[in-house]
Amino acid sequence: MKSAQQQLAEGILFTDEYQFTMAQMYFRMGLHDKPAQFDYFFRGYPDYGGHKAGYCINAGLEWLVDWMRAARFRREEIDCLRGQTGRGGRPLFNADFLAWLEKSGHFDALTMRAVPEGRVVHPNVPLAVVTGPLAIAQILETSLLNHLNIQTLIATKAARIHDICGGRLIIEFGTRRGHGKGVTAATRAALIGGAHFSSNVGISHVLGFPPKGTHAHSMVQAFLAMGLSELDAFRAFAETYPDDCVLLVDTIDTLESGIPNAIRVFEELRRRGHAPVGIRLDSGDLAHLAIQAARMLDAAGFPQTTIVLSNELDELSIWQILTQIGQEAARNGLEAQPIIDRLAYGVGTRLVTSAGAPSLNGVYKLVALRRDGRWIPAMKLSDSPSKIPNPGDKRVHRIYDRRGKATADLLAGKDESPADMREIVLRHMTEARLQRTLRRAEILEIEPLLAPVLAEGRTVYEFPPIEAIRAVRQADLERLDPGVKRLMNPHIYHVSLSEKMWQTKQKLIASMRANLPRASAAPA
Amino acid sequence: MKSAQQQLAEGILFTDEYQFTMAQMYFRMGLHDKPAQFDYFFRGYPDYGGHKAGYCINAGLEWLVDWMRAARFRREEIDCLRGQTGRGGRPLFNADFLAWLEKSGHFDALTMRAVPEGRVVHPNVPLAVVTGPLAIAQILETSLLNHLNIQTLIATKAARIHDICGGRLIIEFGTRRGHGKGVTAATRAALIGGAHFSSNVGISHVLGFPPKGTHAHSMVQAFLAMGLSELDAFRAFAETYPDDCVLLVDTIDTLESGIPNAIRVFEELRRRGHAPVGIRLDSGDLAHLAIQAARMLDAAGFPQTTIVLSNELDELSIWQILTQIGQEAARNGLEAQPIIDRLAYGVGTRLVTSAGAPSLNGVYKLVALRRDGRWIPAMKLSDSPSKIPNPGDKRVHRIYDRRGKATADLLAGKDESPADMREIVLRHMTEARLQRTLRRAEILEIEPLLAPVLAEGRTVYEFPPIEAIRAVRQADLERLDPGVKRLMNPHIYHVSLSEKMWQTKQKLIASMRANLPRASAAPA
Repeated sequence: MKSAQQQLAEGILFTDEYQFTMAQMYFRMGLHDKPAQFDYFFRGYPDYGGHKAGYCINAGLEWLVDWMRAARFRREEIDCLRGQTGRGGRPLFNADFLAWLEKSGHFDALTMRAVPEGRVVHPNVPLAVVTGPLAIAQILETSLLNHLNIQTLIATKAARIHDICGGRLIIEFGTRRGHGKGVTAATRAALIGGAHFSSNVGISHVLGFPPKGTHAHSMVQAFLAMGLSELDAFRAFAETYPDDCVLLVDTIDTLESGIPNAIRVFEELRRRGHAPVGIRLDSGDLAHLAIQAARMLDAAGFPQTTIVLSNELDELSIWQILTQIGQEAARNGLEAQPIIDRLAYGVGTRLVTSAGAPSLNGVYKLVALRRDGRWIPAMKLSDSPSKIPNPGDKRVHRIYDRRGKATADLLAGKDESPADMREIVLRHMTEARLQRTLRRAEILEIEPLLAPVLAEGRTVYEFPPIEAIRAVRQADLERLDPGVKRLMNPHIYHVSLSEKMWQTKQKLIASMRANLPRASAAPA
Repeated sequence: MKSAQQQLAEGILFTDEYQFTMAQMYFRMGLHDKPAQFDYFFRGYPDYGGHKAGYCINAGLEWLVDWMRAARFRREEIDCLRGQTGRGGRPLFNADFLAWLEKSGHFDALTMRAVPEGRVVHPNVPLAVVTGPLAIAQILETSLLNHLNIQTLIATKAARIHDICGGRLIIEFGTRRGHGKGVTAATRAALIGGAHFSSNVGISHVLGFPPKGTHAHSMVQAFLAMGLSELDAFRAFAETYPDDCVLLVDTIDTLESGIPNAIRVFEELRRRGHAPVGIRLDSGDLAHLAIQAARMLDAAGFPQTTIVLSNELDELSIWQILTQIGQEAARNGLEAQPIIDRLAYGVGTRLVTSAGAPSLNGVYKLVALRRDGRWIPAMKLSDSPSKIPNPGDKRVHRIYDRRGKATADLLAGKDESPADMREIVLRHMTEARLQRTLRRAEILEIEPLLAPVLAEGRTVYEFPPIEAIRAVRQADLERLDPGVKRLMNPHIYHVSLSEKMWQTKQKLIASMRANLPRASAAPA
């Protein structure tokens, strides 16, 4: 795609056609400016097949707002829509609608509250609430979903990987197998969720991180093809980077060639006063090879060197490697923990594509419309009760128990103040018989989750740097019950409705069902 | 991400750090300009878990070349690298290397042969062969992989979906759940592989397709919140788009409300001389609802209207729907085929993320280096024989049997001419005992697959429009054995080495293994 094409593809036309067909219909009916409210939420945790997340890490907000600020109808965009024709051959969009779009087709009128990036989040909780003219808030849908779904998906995967790595260094390596230029969003999300660095040069610089990387197999291959050796290749690399020398040892034979050659070069570096950094293992039985590498490096007097593992890693394969090292180290007369402590991880494809669950089921639903000066809750029925969204304007309260652990997210009306209630009834989203009551004494803190981000287009939020977002993530994860954080079969965190919100929802469903035949017949 | 940041992230720094650390080492050793050859190939078909592809559709080439043409070191990119420091605190990249990068760090010196987009392709076949200065061809790696992996992955998924849909209309709906802006690449690939249109407005215009879309549930919800009805919403939409009226019928109750209301509006349209287009079903038991919808629309005199299905569709769920319609239609006194013939498909998330297999395992391997005027094959050993790449400069020949079906892809040296051989020995890539011999009389045609694309940076290839790429795909699929195209358990297509290439590879492996201790010890 050429640069001018990319501008067209990624600007305000980065949305679905039906947003414009609906917008024109609203325009014709005089409804386009009606104040409307939409909720963004996801329906369920990523299910990786055999294992499933018990929480997500919220991400993507800053880039969404950047996009909203820049998205404008230029002459080019209007021309695209003007050129569209319907089946009858006539223009699909009329001149008056296009004139309105050219003037008002931007997001400067929208108000948004959102959950900050880095926060632990759960299904059915509004993570972004957009209020503004119906047609404009509707046009935003596709891009909002695109921006928020991918980053929350990848930040979640990264947090799981971070958890199993126990604080050891994680470098994101996934650009080559990520989804086109979208991998930059995945990298940002990986850095928020748990990766410490990325190999991608450009996006690392944009985000203020030094990119990481050493060399590929091809470097050793090139030396061999020149009639030189792996040792020559390692020496040349070490001479160029004496203080940053990580050697990839599996081009020929890890134990017979790679590690012995690396050790020779490390010895030469040491003689010249440099501290070698480590080796990288990229194939084979990584646990076994890590143990053998540790043994050989220890014997040569390099117990401080790092052993970087890579090759299709994710939270489960790392778990397997750690378990295996625990089991096998003793057999080799070694302690497992020092080996584990010197590991670092290059995690690529399976992180940036969220292998097993490559999409987040985030949706953007109309929840209220303003009519005659009041907000009317908007509803959508469905054969599946879990797919009926929670109507109306909501506040989200996170409730912490006396241990300081988050015990539930409560969706309540904006006129409700759970902090002032003697006891709080938590109703299940769909099941009438499921509820629990929390007494005030059981509650340490009640925290509102949504923060004002845009006020009629004006940014009223300071986007924190990634380091600060990571601190938010870490604090939230520490306040999460360990059962919820389990990599497999996690406890289900409670997302509940207040008693009042539950009653409102039931009344709406009942009245909608009751009115069904009349509603479809009345205006005829 | 802001616009200037995006330029930095997506330009020539859209690569991995180790490409630059290796490049600087080559520069220091005077090796950076050595002519080198790299092959791009993928190792295996996408495995979706329970079903697996038997072929891929090649895609991504034009956008890769667009990127290569535009990628340049500006002052900003050099400044990023200049600012990087190693562990010792000193700059990682030296001024002489940066000066060389600023002058020569572009792809104008590269030569590339590649398999054209739309072609059916198989594992281990070089799909792009890049020749040029070692350091430059190396820096290209990450972006080349990123561009080609994603589009081939998605074009393949689209071809599978196209196959099961039997020519019926497929619209790509996936922008909201695709991976950031990378979804534009996925959309292009989907259009190449089998989707007829996309809902994404911007990229559709860029690629010359009309974007498609009608309305969402929110439109009906908005009318209900205003105290109006689903019928009112449908009427308003039909008045705005009398000749393009597709109505989404599952906001309240598909059979009780949505379809009856749609039929009333269709009758009104007909009275006014318009032909209604159809309905869309987006939830529930789609096969059952499609049968009921067909019955109701037929009874109302609208047998020509389309029934669009959507909701997490992919090749398997569509297969299930078609099978179920085949089984259930008769029970409802209907013929299955006319129902199937009026279906159209909105396919989103699972197409643009290649659900089940969200990455293609494409790699870019050094295969030869020029030394003393000759090309020396480059090799990488591995514990797993299937991961040992095929060394050296290769030609790819597709062999068609007398039925005109492709029977094997043959990798041979550039001095070999299979067309002139009396019989062709096809050697398995790794197993010595597996081979077959084709006599000339059994062969209808031998076709070279690689086409010249870049000659020392000059484009010597005319990139065809997507319509032409689709025709290439369709022709190739018709020449593929039906067994290879099966959605599940496909026949394994043969990718073979020529006898001579097999011998060369074995000799190289043997000499590399024999030299192993010497190679690592000699230059000490």
